Amino acid sequence: MIPIITVEDEMKRIKKPWSPKVIARVNDQVIRLAMFKGTYPMHKHDNEDELFQVIQGKITIQLESNQKIELQQGEMAVIPKGMKHSPNSDLTSYVLMFEPATLTSTGD
Amino acid sequence: MIPIITVEDEMKRIKKPWSPKVIARVNDQVIRLAMFKGTYPMHKHDNEDELFQVIQGKITIQLESNQKIELQQGEMAVIPKGMKHSPNSDLTSYVLMFEPATLTSTGD
Repeated sequence: MIPIITVEDEMKRIKKPWSPKVIARVNDQVIRLAMFKGTYPMHKHDNEDELFQVIQGKITIQLESNQKIELQQGEMAVIPKGMKHSPNSDLTSYVLMFEPATLTSTGD
Repeated sequence: MIPIITVEDEMKRIKKPWSPKVIARVNDQVIRLAMFKGTYPMHKHDNEDELFQVIQGKITIQLESNQKIELQQGEMAVIPKGMKHSPNSDLTSYVLMFEPATLTSTGD
């Protein structure tokens, strides 16, 4: 039987920020749901693009050289591999991230 | 500059059903947005899983042997490679699909 993933239900199971939970696998990619609250340190992924899709709330992603993108509910953006980024959410936001199953952060 | 993809804006640009539009690329995957209305024929993808995320509306995906899954707004499901499926939407629905950039349907 094919499992149905209800994002809102998964959101309720997440109790702390910056702890993504894999909610689906598709090919060699995973879809992870995370609570964003506060600021996650600047980092990059050398070999993988990372897509952010805001499900609830509003986030900013700080890039280098003072560039910053703002994403609200229903918006998404892809951070290309190798690009340093630091996600932030003043309030509690929920974000889906699409990335290879093998992704690991390389902190700075 | 990183483009921000606003799903609702992309929805407005889609005028006919079953004509997915690539709205983002992440690694070797594409994210396609489609209007679902009516029934798409039973088919399968031999080598690729396909994720369906309902953005607006309600769809059913008919599987073989009379199994059927129903997905509403905020729900998603992964159809594994090789599994025959026929999506349907009585009303107009909008669905994001995540799949390899190389995916082609193999009709039945």
